[in-house]
Amino acid sequence: MKKYQLMAPGPTPVPSQVLLAMAQPMIHHRTPEYQALFTEVRAGLKALVQTAQDVIPLACSGTGAMEAAVVNTLSAGETVAVVNAGKFGERWMEIAKTYGMNIVELRAPFGDTVPAARLAETLRTRSEITAVLAQHSESSTGVLHDVRGYAEATRGTGAILIVDAVSSLGIANLEMDTWGVDAVVAGSQKGLMLPPGLAFCALSQKAWARVATSRLPKYYFNLTEEQTWLVKNEPRYTPPVSIVVGLREALRMLQAEGLANVFKRHDRLARATRAGVEALGLQLFPRATPTPALTAVTSPRGIDSEKIVAAYAQAHNITIAGGQGEMKGKLFRLGHMGYAAEFDVIIALSALEQVLADLGVPVDFGASMRAAQKIFAEKA
Amino acid sequence: MKKYQLMAPGPTPVPSQVLLAMAQPMIHHRTPEYQALFTEVRAGLKALVQTAQDVIPLACSGTGAMEAAVVNTLSAGETVAVVNAGKFGERWMEIAKTYGMNIVELRAPFGDTVPAARLAETLRTRSEITAVLAQHSESSTGVLHDVRGYAEATRGTGAILIVDAVSSLGIANLEMDTWGVDAVVAGSQKGLMLPPGLAFCALSQKAWARVATSRLPKYYFNLTEEQTWLVKNEPRYTPPVSIVVGLREALRMLQAEGLANVFKRHDRLARATRAGVEALGLQLFPRATPTPALTAVTSPRGIDSEKIVAAYAQAHNITIAGGQGEMKGKLFRLGHMGYAAEFDVIIALSALEQVLADLGVPVDFGASMRAAQKIFAEKA
Repeated sequence: MKKYQLMAPGPTPVPSQVLLAMAQPMIHHRTPEYQALFTEVRAGLKALVQTAQDVIPLACSGTGAMEAAVVNTLSAGETVAVVNAGKFGERWMEIAKTYGMNIVELRAPFGDTVPAARLAETLRTRSEITAVLAQHSESSTGVLHDVRGYAEATRGTGAILIVDAVSSLGIANLEMDTWGVDAVVAGSQKGLMLPPGLAFCALSQKAWARVATSRLPKYYFNLTEEQTWLVKNEPRYTPPVSIVVGLREALRMLQAEGLANVFKRHDRLARATRAGVEALGLQLFPRATPTPALTAVTSPRGIDSEKIVAAYAQAHNITIAGGQGEMKGKLFRLGHMGYAAEFDVIIALSALEQVLADLGVPVDFGASMRAAQKIFAEKA
Repeated sequence: MKKYQLMAPGPTPVPSQVLLAMAQPMIHHRTPEYQALFTEVRAGLKALVQTAQDVIPLACSGTGAMEAAVVNTLSAGETVAVVNAGKFGERWMEIAKTYGMNIVELRAPFGDTVPAARLAETLRTRSEITAVLAQHSESSTGVLHDVRGYAEATRGTGAILIVDAVSSLGIANLEMDTWGVDAVVAGSQKGLMLPPGLAFCALSQKAWARVATSRLPKYYFNLTEEQTWLVKNEPRYTPPVSIVVGLREALRMLQAEGLANVFKRHDRLARATRAGVEALGLQLFPRATPTPALTAVTSPRGIDSEKIVAAYAQAHNITIAGGQGEMKGKLFRLGHMGYAAEFDVIIALSALEQVLADLGVPVDFGASMRAAQKIFAEKA
């Protein structure tokens, strides 16, 4: 028997108590029961996004919510700056292009970041920029971008800052209101420990002011209409009821742990994973601040990283992820977000040692786990 | 104890075996396990939609799939005919308007239908019409529109027929290929007995030819991109994995029953419900062919139908639905689609007798159930 382990950078494991809550009989979305549920999850989402604004749930994947943020706040012909340093940065590029925007690309090599100073300089010289599109955690490269710095750079300009927090919400600290982020986009299947199928979008006052002037057509993703229903504590369309039921359980778990502790846990898991990987002589893929959501590792010289992914699956029944797009074959990614704890890291590293040895890489067995244990032994 | 009964026209009850399948540990969507799952559900969906075309799953509600069908096959400035005889007909109007189409409205009073001959005449005189948008089952009024006739009227013209089958797929016979329907849109939470959050869109060759010339911007709902991934047997974006897992179970249940039997069952449930309601002296809301998905009943004179809905909930723990929009207060709707069987109808009617009596309506107790029993006693 090999116990199945889901250690990809999303979807992430769903706790049994959440799965079982979702397995309760279906309820209707226009009932007092749903209203009570909706009241609770709306409050929980605000706390999680650290905002006084409503967090609008949308029945779609994270990409749908990215599109919603763009088509509601912008218009064709506007100029947007895109922080592009990975596959999800490219997605912002594609969305902006699809909707007829002029793009100022702030590109960094995959594995690197765009410093806030560079964005600030761009905004100073290109006053026509009306929005900045960025990831918080770029899960294709394992890099955490400096969203706090981007918010500082954007504040006081005419531009709004739209942040894809799909793989950072409930994982890395993101203070929407305090930092001054204008749109936060997230999904259910990462830090929220839920199945995919529910996404979120929260807008600042500055962003809502832009909504009023946006001329792009939208129907399903019309956030103004969504908000009209939300203030009545009702969903606009039939919501993914079972995921919303699961969301209540997941939010309760996060609240019980405390948001600061949730972030600390992810930081510990990430540091332990990185220490373990490096103890085996492997190189981390990021050359900038790594995300606490996952660890991207450069494949050892001469080894296609897809072989590592396959060995994890075939020999150990563990799903990890390889590289996407041009990074395919060059890196592998270990997720440690959401319903993830210390011994999951130990398992991932234990399997890594076996996988590398099987692929002919000399391995000092136990070295990665020893390094991780030292991190876990740190107090407070 | 009052056992909870979900008898609204969607979401509908989810069978326990489906709920428990969905409660299995989360799997990743880029694995051999998911590929095997996807292969099976893709084949099952084709059989259900009665088409040789791929049925594209989308992570959204039915409304999202309605929008997808429009924005992929049409362009701003085109003229579309909309069969508008209920709230979901109005939704087609809104979507077409949002995307800049000229609308030829084929309106019928709520509860009525638009005969195919009227559509044929319109298409003859208005050759600029490039698409016909219609519901199959208009769940706001309980009417089944003549989609087969609409397809005949559309065939040989330059127009495509786009059908919202959200509350008819797996409920009423809809032969996409044989009849010549060009786009079928459906959702997970009606005949498919699943939680909401997954929708479907299938396009005919004629519709795909239109996709190539459509100039409306789309990203999340880009069906060309979806199809590119589908032929590789992979989802384009992170799919609502748990609902897809449930879909496999639901499709197996429908296959085991046999599609013809599924339609017969719904027809029996609908006829029994109508007979029961009429046996109590109530009037059916539809003046045209009623849908087998639900029964819309005109509220007895002097009684706000919201009171009937509330009494079902409060006295009997049963969720039914009232009227939507301008029909609010005037009708109530009993769902009998998806995971619904004979004794569910008996329960709904039993409760109805009690509810009416409590509201002061003279009731011949047992009369509605006697009428239903006679339908159920019919052979073959």
